[in-house]
Order: sequence, then structure tokens, then C-alpha cells
Amino acid sequence: MSAARPPEGARTAGEAEGFPMYAAARTGDAVADIDTPALVLDLDAMERNIARMAAFARQHGVRWRPHAKMHKCAVLALRLVAAGAVGACVQKTAEAEALAAAGVQDLYISNEVVAPAKLARVALLARSLQQRGGRLAIAVDSPEGVDRLAAALAGAQDAIDVFVEIDVGQGRCGLPPGPEAVQLARRIGAAPQLRFAGLQAYHGKAQHLRSAEDRRAAMAAVLLLVRDQLDAFAEAGLAVPLVTGAGTGSMAHEAGSGIYGELQAGSFLFMDADYAGNDTDPAQPVFEHALFVKSQVISRNARHAVCDAGHKSHAIDSGLPLVHRPEGGAPWRYANGGDEHGVLHADDGQPLPALGQAVWLIPGHCDPTVNLHDTLVGVRGGLLQGRVEELLRVDARGALA
Amino acid sequence: MSAARPPEGARTAGEAEGFPMYAAARTGDAVADIDTPALVLDLDAMERNIARMAAFARQHGVRWRPHAKMHKCAVLALRLVAAGAVGACVQKTAEAEALAAAGVQDLYISNEVVAPAKLARVALLARSLQQRGGRLAIAVDSPEGVDRLAAALAGAQDAIDVFVEIDVGQGRCGLPPGPEAVQLARRIGAAPQLRFAGLQAYHGKAQHLRSAEDRRAAMAAVLLLVRDQLDAFAEAGLAVPLVTGAGTGSMAHEAGSGIYGELQAGSFLFMDADYAGNDTDPAQPVFEHALFVKSQVISRNARHAVCDAGHKSHAIDSGLPLVHRPEGGAPWRYANGGDEHGVLHADDGQPLPALGQAVWLIPGHCDPTVNLHDTLVGVRGGLLQGRVEELLRVDARGALA
Repeated sequence: MSAARPPEGARTAGEAEGFPMYAAARTGDAVADIDTPALVLDLDAMERNIARMAAFARQHGVRWRPHAKMHKCAVLALRLVAAGAVGACVQKTAEAEALAAAGVQDLYISNEVVAPAKLARVALLARSLQQRGGRLAIAVDSPEGVDRLAAALAGAQDAIDVFVEIDVGQGRCGLPPGPEAVQLARRIGAAPQLRFAGLQAYHGKAQHLRSAEDRRAAMAAVLLLVRDQLDAFAEAGLAVPLVTGAGTGSMAHEAGSGIYGELQAGSFLFMDADYAGNDTDPAQPVFEHALFVKSQVISRNARHAVCDAGHKSHAIDSGLPLVHRPEGGAPWRYANGGDEHGVLHADDGQPLPALGQAVWLIPGHCDPTVNLHDTLVGVRGGLLQGRVEELLRVDARGALA
Repeated sequence: MSAARPPEGARTAGEAEGFPMYAAARTGDAVADIDTPALVLDLDAMERNIARMAAFARQHGVRWRPHAKMHKCAVLALRLVAAGAVGACVQKTAEAEALAAAGVQDLYISNEVVAPAKLARVALLARSLQQRGGRLAIAVDSPEGVDRLAAALAGAQDAIDVFVEIDVGQGRCGLPPGPEAVQLARRIGAAPQLRFAGLQAYHGKAQHLRSAEDRRAAMAAVLLLVRDQLDAFAEAGLAVPLVTGAGTGSMAHEAGSGIYGELQAGSFLFMDADYAGNDTDPAQPVFEHALFVKSQVISRNARHAVCDAGHKSHAIDSGLPLVHRPEGGAPWRYANGGDEHGVLHADDGQPLPALGQAVWLIPGHCDPTVNLHDTLVGVRGGLLQGRVEELLRVDARGALA
């Protein structure tokens, strides 16, 4: 059973000495015995997703650098590299620190860092990684950002790669495509500690357009902007070593563009209910759901059942979870029951789950869901008959800064 | 400054040996030097909220047992007890374990637990607490739940308090008010290890009705149901030792009812943007915002600024955060920028924040926001000139099971 000893490497509540401790699962447990709520990773499905992504990147002749803001696990970043990825992206300095501390060698902070105290950490981390043969890259979108980064790296032995972020439709960070980006690249080139490495060009909103045709149209606009930007660099006589970007919803367009050299898609690894809501695009591989919240019914009446997973167990920013029934039967409908509860309804005449019965949820959005958990329970052999093969520590859980 | 050494007792990313580590702040730092994003607690405001709540409970002659699902910090549960609270409520067994391990003596799991493995933990925890002079109570809403709890406690030396949960409008857990609740109390009384302690009657949805009149009407219906339930117990000749419930939005009604003996309100301690959206009710104390996400601008253009706090830093289930400007000036409007970003807009003609400038956010919902952080940075002397006085560990962060 699943009580008693904490899993190796997993943080658990009640860890203080002399007090009862719990763990959602131990390796070797039957999946049926995993305590709830727990975040369960179907290793078989994940490995099929990795194989599909590796084949896709090979076929298009592009590098892939999956975004670790999604899975936050060093062990998964390293497995992706073993499968052909060049390294990992992160959004936060603290994520880079957590993954580097757990052995990841090649990291790219695809986001802006401007606080001097944080840039000092970036410089320290870059040196630590370089000393063991790894590397750290970062994005910028302002002259002040370049100057502060250069100041933090003053005296560094090795230069670091710096990408200029352009806004290709997301409306968030990034310079407007045009001459400013060329000027920023020159400013980077003028600092001896910095090396202009190319363009960061990601359109996050395009990932979640439901129709394949809408995504194609949005990405056509992105590609036009990136091409114009590349023309401006060519006119200025400045080489652009790499264009990097792309997500799980759009990557066929970047991969086939001839201008993107690196894909940052991360969600393909686990998938979620939001991405599953996209139309199939024949140009893209089909990825499987590999991430589930296992919950169970703690209360039940004639109208509904209540499970023990609310939005402290799964993020709801991209919609509520879907119910998955590995045992078959019509899926129950999940209604929000607050932070700690979900309310389950059945179609007319269909039975509700019994008290204590397992209820499997497919999270609406994998990234912030993973961030709510310390451990992924990795299972093999399916959700009904399988066993727990490993516990994966979410190294960068809560690494916000 | 805020880099380098981790704060005592705080979990930080990058903790592995030999690698750069960070901490959002150290005690003694100026508030201006707190790294971002960080969850900052205004200790002065919180202490005023505690004093108001203590006075309110005294004035109405009711006990208070603030819900620790909100703050999840043992040190705060203990301070509330020092101010007059009788103990803490929690929703999850793991929360009870985490708080007990950190010294909290009197805990009530105001929720159903039915898994045998988890009930074994409840039994173990109850014994541990009893051995040091503390106590654990729990709620039930089904005969099977009572039987399983009794089985888990078979052979226990001391009985534990068990509350019957009735559904007074929330539409989630709990029996419909009526004879079933009386039968369940009898079933509890028949188990030597269990003691019928009273009724759990909480209407969560009523807390967030915007108009004071709507809340009054909803609570009038609740009080009617509870009174009928008490009549049914009286007819059956069964004493009801306590009725417990109430939240920050409704507590004037429970406190003044003459039938509720204990208030579970928790959010009053920190407050959030959602509760601040309620009409003022003259019967209730006015509580201040004490909880803020400190973020900073990492990107800026003519149209907007982008800060480094998205919904991995604050929960958005009850709406986006409000921008608070301790320095004065019209508040910027916060738009969702995804997991790691917020997009800030200014009123026409008003300036946007500068690159690197601090942006203070009032979270939409305090409970799931606290659950995203390992540490609360406790400050005194205000958000502009103050200093960090203490770092509070979020003991039950991620304690889901």
C-alpha cells in the first residue's frame, strides 16, 4: 500500500522527524494503490510522444529544444536530450538553476531578465555551466537589457549566446519586427561578453486557435514577419545564426518554413485537454495524453459525486479537466468544486462513480498543473493494470524568480 | 541585496550542493530589495486583521477556528491560537500532518476522508496529537465513511470528534438536512472510538455574492436549514454539541445566529481581490489586504509593460489580480500574459511603469495563491519603506492528499 515511507527524492508534507509521513506511491506499487490526488505520468505514452517528436524533427532537419517550463523535471530534460534534443528552454532564472543543479547542461532562458541581482545569478550560472562543458543562453528585447546583461557578465571568460526577441503576434515581450531588432543585435555584438545568437520568435496565442486553418493563417503572418526581419538583417550585412520558437500547436509551420532552425514545443510530451481541443493538422504528429490527475470519490449522493481534486491539484486557466475512463464507460462531466473538490455528473441514466472509486482527470493545461506537484508518479503498463516504475522529482516546481 | 544564501527553513530551487542558490529575500533586507516574483505578507496589516477578528468573535461569544487551507503556515496557525482561536481547520489529511509536524495541536479536517490508506494516517495522526495533549477531529457524510473511520480507529485508546456535514446550499459534500443526518450521528455514537461532535454546515458560494443583501438572503436560508436540522435532533433526543462553519463573506450571519458556535473564516487574515469585491456589510469587520505578489517590469513598449508574474505566481480562478500602487498614482490594469507574465496597461495619458520597476499585485484568491509559494516574505513598515522581518514557511504547500 501507499502510506508510510516517503519516496526517495520526493518532498512530502509531514517530513519533520518523529511524525507520520505519507507518499502518494512507492515504486512497485500497483497503479490502483496510488494515493489521491496524485499526478500520474504514463511512461509508455510519453515515450511514444518523444519518438514521434524526434522523428518529426529529423524529417524536417530542425533542432528541438523542448520547453522545460512545462515538465520542470531534470530527468525528463536529460531523456529528451538522449532522444536527440539539443537542450532545454526555460522561462525563469530559478528554473535554469534548478535544472542545472540536477545535471542539465544546455539551457536557454527564452525570456527577459533585467534585475541586476538576477543577472548576477545568470552570470554565475553561465560560468558554472561553462566550467563543466555546458552553456547558458538568454533572450533580450531592450538596449537597457543588453547593457545590464553585459555589465553582469563583465570580466567573464566566455561569452554567452543572446537572442533578440521579436513580437510576432503574441503582444507581450519582444521588439516590433524591424530596424530596432537589427540595432539591438549590433549592441549585443559590441559587448565582448555577449554573442548575437539569432532571433526568438514565438506566437503563443496561435498555438491554441482551434481550427488548423486559423493556425495556418496566423503562422503565415508570423513567417512573413520573420522573413522581413531576416531581410532587414541581410541588408545590414548581419548574419542571423538561428531562428528559434514554435509550440505544440503550430510547429509544423515553423518546421517546414525553411527559416526556423529550432523548435521549442514542450507540451507534446504530456499533452493536455486544451491542445487536444485543436483540430488535427495532417502536417503534425498526433500526440497522446500522458499526464493524468488520479483522484477518488469522497462523497456521493443521488445527483452527483465529489472527488478530491480541485484547482489546487490541476490548473484551470485553460479550462476544466476532462474525465478519462480507462475502464470504459461514458465519461463523467467534471464541474468546478473549488480548491479541493470536483463535482462529477453522469449522463441521464448512467451510473455515477462509487464512493472511493478512482476518477482520472486530463488536466486542461499541463504546465501550471505540473507546477502544483512535487512528484510525478511514473507508471508503466496502463492506468488499470500497470505498476509504478519511478517517481520523478519536479525539480523546478515553484521556481518563479 | 537578495541573492546568494537561502533563507533558513525555506525551500529554494537550485538547492543541490555546489550550485548557485537563490532566495527571494533575507530578514533585514529592504522591501525594495525583495526579488520577484515573491509573495509578500504585510505583517502590520495582518495583525490588525487578527485583532479585528478576535474582537468580533469575543463580542459575539463564539469560538473561531480559522481555516488553514488558506495560509498553510503552522506559525500563523499558532499565532491565531495565541490571539484566541481554538485551533485550525484543514481540508486534507496531508495538511493536518504538515501543521501537526510543525507544532499545531488542535486540528479539524472539515472534509470527508474515505480511502482506507488515508484513514490509517488519520488514526496515526490522531494518536500522535493525543499523546502530546492535542486533538484531531474530522467530518463525515456517509454511513460507509463512518464505518471506515471506525475501522481505522479500532483499538484506539481515545475517541475522536466527528462532525456530520450537511449541505446547506453549496451543492458539494454533505447530507441533505433531515433525518439522515440524525441517523448518521447515531451511527457515530454507536462506535466506541467516535464521538458525535456536532454539525459541519458551510455555504462556500454564499461568501462571494456581491451584494450584502444577497448574502443575507442566502444565509437566512442556511440558518433555516440548520434550525430545522437542530429541531430534528432535539425531537430524536440527541444533543448537538456544536455547529461549525462560516467564511469571511458571511460570518456576521453565523456569529449572530445563536446556533453557530464556531467560525471557520480564514481569508480575513490576508484578504484578496475577490472578497474585496463584496459590498461592505456594517455587521462585519472591515479587513485589509495583507497579501501581495511583488513583481517587476521585464519588458516595455509604447503600448504596455510586461511584469514577471503570471498564473504560476497567483491563482486566477476567482479573477485576475488587481494592481496596488503603494507609491500612489492610478492603478495599472493587469491583463493575463500566461503562466509567467502579466501585461500592464495604463489609463490614457498615464505613464506605464519603467523597466525594472516594482509592480504590486493583490491576488484574486488568496488560498490557491499561497499554495504556489514555498515562503511568505513577512514585512513590517509598509511596502515602500519597510524591511523584511521574517520568512514564513508555507508548511502545507502542495499537501494535497
